[in-house]
Amino acid sequence: MVKKKELTYLEVAEAWPRLKPADRARRLKQLPPDLAHEFFFDLSVSDQVDIVLALSLGERRQWIRTLAPDDVADFIQASPGDQRSGLLALLDEPTRAEVIALLAYAEDEAGGLMNPRYIRVRPGMTVAEALGYFRRQAQQRSGRDTPAFAYILDADGKLAGQVSLTDLVAGDPATRVAELMNTDVITIPEEADQEDVAHLFAEHRLAAAPVVDREGRMKGVVTADDVVAVAEEEATEDIQKLGGSSALDAPYLKTAFHRMVRKRAGWLSALFLGEMLTATAMAFFEAEIARAVVLALFVPLIISSGGNSGSQATTLVIRAMALGEVRLRDWWRVVSRELAAGVVLGVVLGSIGFLRIVIWQKVSPIYGPHYMLVAATVFCSLIGVVTFGTFAGSLLPFILRRLGFDPASASAPFVATLVDVTGLVIYFTAASLILRGTVL
Amino acid sequence: MVKKKELTYLEVAEAWPRLKPADRARRLKQLPPDLAHEFFFDLSVSDQVDIVLALSLGERRQWIRTLAPDDVADFIQASPGDQRSGLLALLDEPTRAEVIALLAYAEDEAGGLMNPRYIRVRPGMTVAEALGYFRRQAQQRSGRDTPAFAYILDADGKLAGQVSLTDLVAGDPATRVAELMNTDVITIPEEADQEDVAHLFAEHRLAAAPVVDREGRMKGVVTADDVVAVAEEEATEDIQKLGGSSALDAPYLKTAFHRMVRKRAGWLSALFLGEMLTATAMAFFEAEIARAVVLALFVPLIISSGGNSGSQATTLVIRAMALGEVRLRDWWRVVSRELAAGVVLGVVLGSIGFLRIVIWQKVSPIYGPHYMLVAATVFCSLIGVVTFGTFAGSLLPFILRRLGFDPASASAPFVATLVDVTGLVIYFTAASLILRGTVL
Repeated sequence: MVKKKELTYLEVAEAWPRLKPADRARRLKQLPPDLAHEFFFDLSVSDQVDIVLALSLGERRQWIRTLAPDDVADFIQASPGDQRSGLLALLDEPTRAEVIALLAYAEDEAGGLMNPRYIRVRPGMTVAEALGYFRRQAQQRSGRDTPAFAYILDADGKLAGQVSLTDLVAGDPATRVAELMNTDVITIPEEADQEDVAHLFAEHRLAAAPVVDREGRMKGVVTADDVVAVAEEEATEDIQKLGGSSALDAPYLKTAFHRMVRKRAGWLSALFLGEMLTATAMAFFEAEIARAVVLALFVPLIISSGGNSGSQATTLVIRAMALGEVRLRDWWRVVSRELAAGVVLGVVLGSIGFLRIVIWQKVSPIYGPHYMLVAATVFCSLIGVVTFGTFAGSLLPFILRRLGFDPASASAPFVATLVDVTGLVIYFTAASLILRGTVL
Repeated sequence: MVKKKELTYLEVAEAWPRLKPADRARRLKQLPPDLAHEFFFDLSVSDQVDIVLALSLGERRQWIRTLAPDDVADFIQASPGDQRSGLLALLDEPTRAEVIALLAYAEDEAGGLMNPRYIRVRPGMTVAEALGYFRRQAQQRSGRDTPAFAYILDADGKLAGQVSLTDLVAGDPATRVAELMNTDVITIPEEADQEDVAHLFAEHRLAAAPVVDREGRMKGVVTADDVVAVAEEEATEDIQKLGGSSALDAPYLKTAFHRMVRKRAGWLSALFLGEMLTATAMAFFEAEIARAVVLALFVPLIISSGGNSGSQATTLVIRAMALGEVRLRDWWRVVSRELAAGVVLGVVLGSIGFLRIVIWQKVSPIYGPHYMLVAATVFCSLIGVVTFGTFAGSLLPFILRRLGFDPASASAPFVATLVDVTGLVIYFTAASLILRGTVL
């Protein structure tokens, strides 16, 4: 029977929250070196940092040098600011240069995600020569890199093609690499947003993709194992924004209380200030409410229906945008579709509301003699409010993107706030049209 | 200069929406066979299905046989129900058996995600023998598979270790595989949920992981390129549920209008029925509203604050749960933290609300002589409502998971609806306590 890492990981993971970094480091050193390295590579970057910073300078050097340059860059980015230059100094000269180049990319750019080390072969090489070269390169690699492709560049460093290690191994040793290589390679611009990189990988089911600069010169390789984490991270950011708070940028339970409250208080206060307009709108219709208190009863129902339909629309559109299914130029197609959906959904909710009032009145006659008119007011308002909510919720992400903001900021609560004020105006306008001369 | 696939893809992607499946198939056949295959592999599964179904039986057979078994399984799952057995009949016997075995897994299980073909070597083989074996296996593979690992099984078919192709290529040809292999392998149970598979890949930055049954027998391999798409798909489902609609299960613009409206109308109607309780609650306080219409003015502001704070809390908790950061047993840690956050956020919003009323009264005295008491009512109610919203929003996902439901169903609109009724009760109770004898 095999000793599986999952068990080891689970065993330690159980003890992990209770161990101090120094104890974690000690436990790690008790493992045989091979296992310890494997275990270290499996840790999250923040755990790696905690452990390494608990070690002596000599030991720090040893551990940080086991990492590949892109992992070192992630490591440095996750370290406290005052430790970074000290950590960089532990690297050997060529690696340090590579890591500094990687750190120059924004954290969410393809360039920041790539491994600058890749295997380069010449087109004139035979398969046997390329394999020999691959072999020498692989023997020098750091970390747990398992390069799956070799890349063929022309004299200017521009990408000419790629060949998989599998094809090299399966190929006839005497064949030239140029005959075996795939020239039809999906490449990634170095300044591409990592969210777009994730979509490209998901859409084409890529295992790896070369990163190129504007001139088509190859800069490094992004592999699918790094992209899985990116896809989750980007989705988390969008979800947190959609829920009406700033992105936490750290696991929920690891975010300090005051930091989390600050991130949430900002958005909640902004929404609250917007929502104050409802009090102004209500004050505007105070006379109507005083004359027909029955109108006030349906205020929460009406405005929440607008908010809910707006949330639905904005969420669907934002996600479709994030996945690249919907682009800015599709705005009219989407918004007109949502307008139609809004009318249908409004009629559905309006009918339920109408029936509710009519049936309730039979049971307990609290809506007065003109209950049919009240029901008609609720029916018409719901159509108007739900249609407007759906329309505004679908349009807002396009406006935000057009203005250069993140469409995910059009959170469900943001749309609800926007729709609430309009909902009140629609409701009381419908009421004054339908009920004038009777209740009002 | 290279002819890059990205250009080709973009060129065709531009024309794509305007081409009928038959025209797409014709265009594909005009490409040289190698390019056509590459292009075909790059298409989304639904596009592959459209094209293949537009072809003659003989051509269908040819195209479907270029796909690896797990891709065929995806292909069959994406095909119309009445076409499936016909498509299965086009496969050769061993592949058909593999595909049928894959189709038996639920679509969101690890087993449904794996490739049942993998390279198996014996521990006693030398590196040179293993490479020779790898080579013969690789020559027979279908699709665009680039197997990166070989697996070592014991006599019972249980996983004993893995060795990367890179290590084989870099290793001494005379070494035994048993000496080179890594026995410390992270494995995936075949019935694991694909969302958990994605977290495992993200956490450990895996390139590939073997899938095993309960007895530890190896069933296949999941690779990171497939997992990127899973991570996006699962996030999309959660986002759509959080926005208060059922998951669409297809790209937004490709979902038929009536189908989309149905998915949304169900949730909106359910929320509407829940929200009707607000009308009941308001009717309960009708006498108070009639006596002090000023109370009605703040109803939208109060209940929306509860809804917004509840949305924040539920979204953060649901995402942390989906990422495995928070487990069921953490519930009290999370809920008590959210209670504290709710009090702080309530005091912030309450203070803003208090100041708003006091300052507004100086500008235009619409809140009457007892405006300080009204302001105090709003202050206290906001603390109560925001605290309750945050508490309920954080608790609900735990209750849903405990009961076996998807916590993501605790959507922002769902929580808002729940909190609205309670918010009204808190507000009017605070009002009757504070305003009794003056306004009321």
